[in-house]
Amino acid sequence: MASESKVDVLIVGAGPAGMMMSAWMARCGIKTRIVDKRGTKASTLIMSIFNGQADGLQCRTLEIFDSFGFADRAWLESNHMLEICFWNPDESGKIARSGRIPDTIPGISRFQQVVLNQGRIERFFLDQIERESDIRVERGVLPIALKFDESKAEDNSPDNYPITVTLRHLTQEEATPKQVATSANGMTASDGLFRSNLAADDTADLIKAAELNSKAGAVETVHAKYMLGADGAHSWVRRELGFTLEGESTDYIWGVLDIVPITDFPDIRMRCAIHSAESGSVMVIPRENKLVRLYIQVTTTEKNADGTSAGSRADRSKINPEVILASANKIMAPYKLSYRTLDWWTAYQIGQRVGTHFSANERIFLAGDAVHTHSPKAGQGMNVSMQDTFNLGWKIASVLKGTADRSILKSYEVERSSIAHDLIKFDHKFSRLFSGRPAKDVMDEEGISLTEFKEAFAKGNMFASGIAVNYGGSSIVAKSPEAAETNGTNGVTNGASKSVVSRQELATEVKVGMRMPSHKVLNQSDARPWHFQQRLPSNGTWRVVLFPGDLTKADRRADLEAVSKQLSQPTSFLKRFTPKDGRYDSVIEVLTVHSGHRQEFGIFDFPDVLHPFHEVDGWDYNKIFVDDQSYHEGHGEAYKNYGIDPAVGAAVIIRPDQYVAYVGEITDYSSLDQFFSGFMLEQK
Amino acid sequence: MASESKVDVLIVGAGPAGMMMSAWMARCGIKTRIVDKRGTKASTLIMSIFNGQADGLQCRTLEIFDSFGFADRAWLESNHMLEICFWNPDESGKIARSGRIPDTIPGISRFQQVVLNQGRIERFFLDQIERESDIRVERGVLPIALKFDESKAEDNSPDNYPITVTLRHLTQEEATPKQVATSANGMTASDGLFRSNLAADDTADLIKAAELNSKAGAVETVHAKYMLGADGAHSWVRRELGFTLEGESTDYIWGVLDIVPITDFPDIRMRCAIHSAESGSVMVIPRENKLVRLYIQVTTTEKNADGTSAGSRADRSKINPEVILASANKIMAPYKLSYRTLDWWTAYQIGQRVGTHFSANERIFLAGDAVHTHSPKAGQGMNVSMQDTFNLGWKIASVLKGTADRSILKSYEVERSSIAHDLIKFDHKFSRLFSGRPAKDVMDEEGISLTEFKEAFAKGNMFASGIAVNYGGSSIVAKSPEAAETNGTNGVTNGASKSVVSRQELATEVKVGMRMPSHKVLNQSDARPWHFQQRLPSNGTWRVVLFPGDLTKADRRADLEAVSKQLSQPTSFLKRFTPKDGRYDSVIEVLTVHSGHRQEFGIFDFPDVLHPFHEVDGWDYNKIFVDDQSYHEGHGEAYKNYGIDPAVGAAVIIRPDQYVAYVGEITDYSSLDQFFSGFMLEQK
Repeated sequence: MASESKVDVLIVGAGPAGMMMSAWMARCGIKTRIVDKRGTKASTLIMSIFNGQADGLQCRTLEIFDSFGFADRAWLESNHMLEICFWNPDESGKIARSGRIPDTIPGISRFQQVVLNQGRIERFFLDQIERESDIRVERGVLPIALKFDESKAEDNSPDNYPITVTLRHLTQEEATPKQVATSANGMTASDGLFRSNLAADDTADLIKAAELNSKAGAVETVHAKYMLGADGAHSWVRRELGFTLEGESTDYIWGVLDIVPITDFPDIRMRCAIHSAESGSVMVIPRENKLVRLYIQVTTTEKNADGTSAGSRADRSKINPEVILASANKIMAPYKLSYRTLDWWTAYQIGQRVGTHFSANERIFLAGDAVHTHSPKAGQGMNVSMQDTFNLGWKIASVLKGTADRSILKSYEVERSSIAHDLIKFDHKFSRLFSGRPAKDVMDEEGISLTEFKEAFAKGNMFASGIAVNYGGSSIVAKSPEAAETNGTNGVTNGASKSVVSRQELATEVKVGMRMPSHKVLNQSDARPWHFQQRLPSNGTWRVVLFPGDLTKADRRADLEAVSKQLSQPTSFLKRFTPKDGRYDSVIEVLTVHSGHRQEFGIFDFPDVLHPFHEVDGWDYNKIFVDDQSYHEGHGEAYKNYGIDPAVGAAVIIRPDQYVAYVGEITDYSSLDQFFSGFMLEQK
Repeated sequence: MASESKVDVLIVGAGPAGMMMSAWMARCGIKTRIVDKRGTKASTLIMSIFNGQADGLQCRTLEIFDSFGFADRAWLESNHMLEICFWNPDESGKIARSGRIPDTIPGISRFQQVVLNQGRIERFFLDQIERESDIRVERGVLPIALKFDESKAEDNSPDNYPITVTLRHLTQEEATPKQVATSANGMTASDGLFRSNLAADDTADLIKAAELNSKAGAVETVHAKYMLGADGAHSWVRRELGFTLEGESTDYIWGVLDIVPITDFPDIRMRCAIHSAESGSVMVIPRENKLVRLYIQVTTTEKNADGTSAGSRADRSKINPEVILASANKIMAPYKLSYRTLDWWTAYQIGQRVGTHFSANERIFLAGDAVHTHSPKAGQGMNVSMQDTFNLGWKIASVLKGTADRSILKSYEVERSSIAHDLIKFDHKFSRLFSGRPAKDVMDEEGISLTEFKEAFAKGNMFASGIAVNYGGSSIVAKSPEAAETNGTNGVTNGASKSVVSRQELATEVKVGMRMPSHKVLNQSDARPWHFQQRLPSNGTWRVVLFPGDLTKADRRADLEAVSKQLSQPTSFLKRFTPKDGRYDSVIEVLTVHSGHRQEFGIFDFPDVLHPFHEVDGWDYNKIFVDDQSYHEGHGEAYKNYGIDPAVGAAVIIRPDQYVAYVGEITDYSSLDQFFSGFMLEQK
């Protein structure tokens, strides 16, 4: 008795990428289901495993969390990593501190890299999703069949559900990962191997168990408009679509220990890159709650029985915490390391792979580990995975809401596959440097020189922050002509973007294709200082930010009044693309940041369209800001930091994901209109 | 069939004062019950009333919230008030903006005054209490009889329960406030009168209802060691003890509207003090979620039918939102004010009263509105109430745990009654200034001059911040000889404090009797910047903070080593007052803040006692800090800001509530020992 139901978006996998997608759907009010094959009832055990799934959170990830309202929780609970210490062999061959650099490049973000276990991060998402929507993660639910009618992919009619998925509700036993169910032998430490890439995927086993035990769980059919496969490196969705990951594995085997360290090593609460002369390397990642994660090169581990090495899987029975700890002590000698508290451990081989396709007809999408796998040491995995769906979510939501054309969905693969390839390149280089033997001296050409390593590390830090992401030109990124040739990711342009070109020189530090930098500005109405990014929450709204400059000057006032007049016309893009029953700022929000003295102005000195009136809420007090001195938090110097001349001004378009789409003249209303006309749909 | 049970602390009343007490008890692991006569089932209705119970949160209150781990939630959800605008009649008699000042004095705290409804604040407390203990607020529970055996007050034996309280569990109907139960007529706005002091107290009604309906709810007997009456202005506990409030009422009647304003008044999102020429005054308090609270002088309201006026209660049937709004429009003319959203309203008469006693034999204590009532406009009520029990909680906990002598409990009344009297004085002056007619010109002696008003307002701001609190000398506050004569609250001293005297000049800005100011320092182990107050969480621990100065100097190192050696002795106060099974920092925590360059030192350069070893957790990485430049958050300049000479150093004792108890020489171990010996109990 299979039940049938319809949903706008079906998400498979409730890890970070799936959660981020749900966060968008919750915010945008999209009818969504999210399923995960792992069960709920075993949550205590599963949570102890999640303890192990810790990762650094990049600055950019924290900025994104802030846009969903929970960066403060992550900031409060996490360990903050401030400094990287390099330890290398000295002349006598013993390790010694050879240098220090800040972990996060000062000034690139208002956040710095922190470390927190994945279970807490998923909790923040769950709380947000539950507070803002009726979406609930359905655990112990396994997709077992997928039908996709490609011929209907481009059909925009509201009752078109081209995707059909069969879901089976598992019994608790089925939904409990094997290793958890069988290894609950009183050990306090969880064996993380089954979550690492040395463990065989358990999806097939789960499907088999479900088949055998079919009466235990109900089967249902779900018809969906869109679908996301965020179901990990062994993605069932990816395999159903016939897509693969391409790339390579290496010989290097690494062990991971999460311990409360007992040690005389002086930098154990710093991030450390320790290279021994002959015994391999250790990376130290200090964590919350006194824990420290150690990535330890396990050079002595044997190969599989069949002698396979490169590209093959190692024999997991030979790796255990004692072996890993012994390696650590060899590498870190003469310092001693031990523990009484072992929170988690695992081992993995480094491998870098990228998916061949990121979507099927822009209806079924893949994200996170389902399209890119790499080593965990760079602290990128969870971040890039979440940023995949942070890129995708608002696009699907706006297409479903009928405000944007389906063509914008193509930008997901264009934008994110180039990031995935960058990530793989970065990880490959980083891993080689980190796993390699340090050079003995300048003549040692096979060894990795300390200079080379430090330089790569410093460069890598910029990539690793997530701030360097620079999306190529498209209908939703209007690069300037010069930038379109040389931008960071790729130069894809289409007809629309060619017709609207940015004038980057008007806001030199508001880089088109990159995320809007954040500087403090004051609310004109109440003098409160805000980091400008805080005024760009993730709610699916595009923003036009007017920087009129110094309004004590008549020409600056005249320019602002001219553009405001055009924005107020019944035919303006603000009106044409906003549904008749939608709030004035539901599709495109206009924000104004003027320069000058707050106390010389009030919001009634500004045209109405810049602080619209609402019959229930009155005037809008949250649209007009000023670049001025605050009482308690200094001066943001926003114009200076954004590279905008107060005597000239600028207009900026910001995407719902905070990426800069356009920079132009404040009076160039027609470019603004033309930009939105390139992909937005007129409302009736 | 009355059940009997025992509890260490019984709290009556789950408002802010009761919640703060529970927060301490949860942190300190004290067996506690907290009861409130209001019910749970009607919580939706009650929450809509709590909406109305909004208040400013002082900087000091936010510092305290931070010590319990939830200042960030309050900071995020609240409206921040940055500026006060004064509006007064101009020469033509129309109101005009006559000045602006910052709402919080810049530099006095890392927080500024914010506004948030009481329901959210109680939620933060509930979350903290539930997370950290098994204490649960029991609602719909009414105390109906109190027996207190005064003769056993000083008996310290662990099975002495001198307090016996009979509790009756109410039915839902009984526990639902009358006005809520009867006025649910579909109006969106709650009538707040029953919570204001114009409403008759409903305790007697509730007791009567409970008697009539006695079979509905169970009765139980609770034996308690200590008890807190935090049950509001009509405190049942206070009346059972025979104590009264003394003070006066005035003629002025004020209406309160919580609305989403629709207005052309330009400063509606600022805190405003508006004085009209002839029509009275309005205070504007901008709140969260677009709401604005308006305190409006209702000059036309009639007196009671019997003609009573001053000191009597007004006829509430004559006051309604329309009357209040009409007054506001008269006062704020020519600006217009209206609303479509009315969240809450009430009316009150100003009255200032202080309790005659704050405790019965230091066994039963009163706090909050039970011992002081005043007008709400100064935004003090909730703050001072919470600070009452913030002062009391750790004292009771340490006596119950056997670490401190009962004599410290006397300091509660000494310290808090002087604050209550200051509050009443402040409120009296403030209310008179605010309710009075503005002076027409300098010759108008009866009117309040703008200069006088502004000066009082600015002075009041320091008091209102909560930072100015300065506790008098006692066994737990070792004032310097000069300060003991002139301190802010009172000069009570006892034998112990006379024998230990502070040397205030060694840390000129660490004022003995006042809360420890906060400046940023770096953790020596991981370079993380912390506001020093963040290292003083409310967990019941005393702190000795060693400021050794610049450790590159041999004499500074020698001093630090000398005092460390004494701290390490088996006979040191650290050892004598810490239970044998307690952690090394469970009663007194030693923190070190040195000056100089972080990178020149590691924690192993410091004596072990300053970063103790624990067999499971290893070395302690959270005890040693440094006053140095951070990577991302500047330089805290802690030594400079604390007024400590790096060439001399200092030792500071901080109470569990962050108040400075002692400042002395770093080598003066014997004063430290003597100070703690004055009230701490040796452990066996």
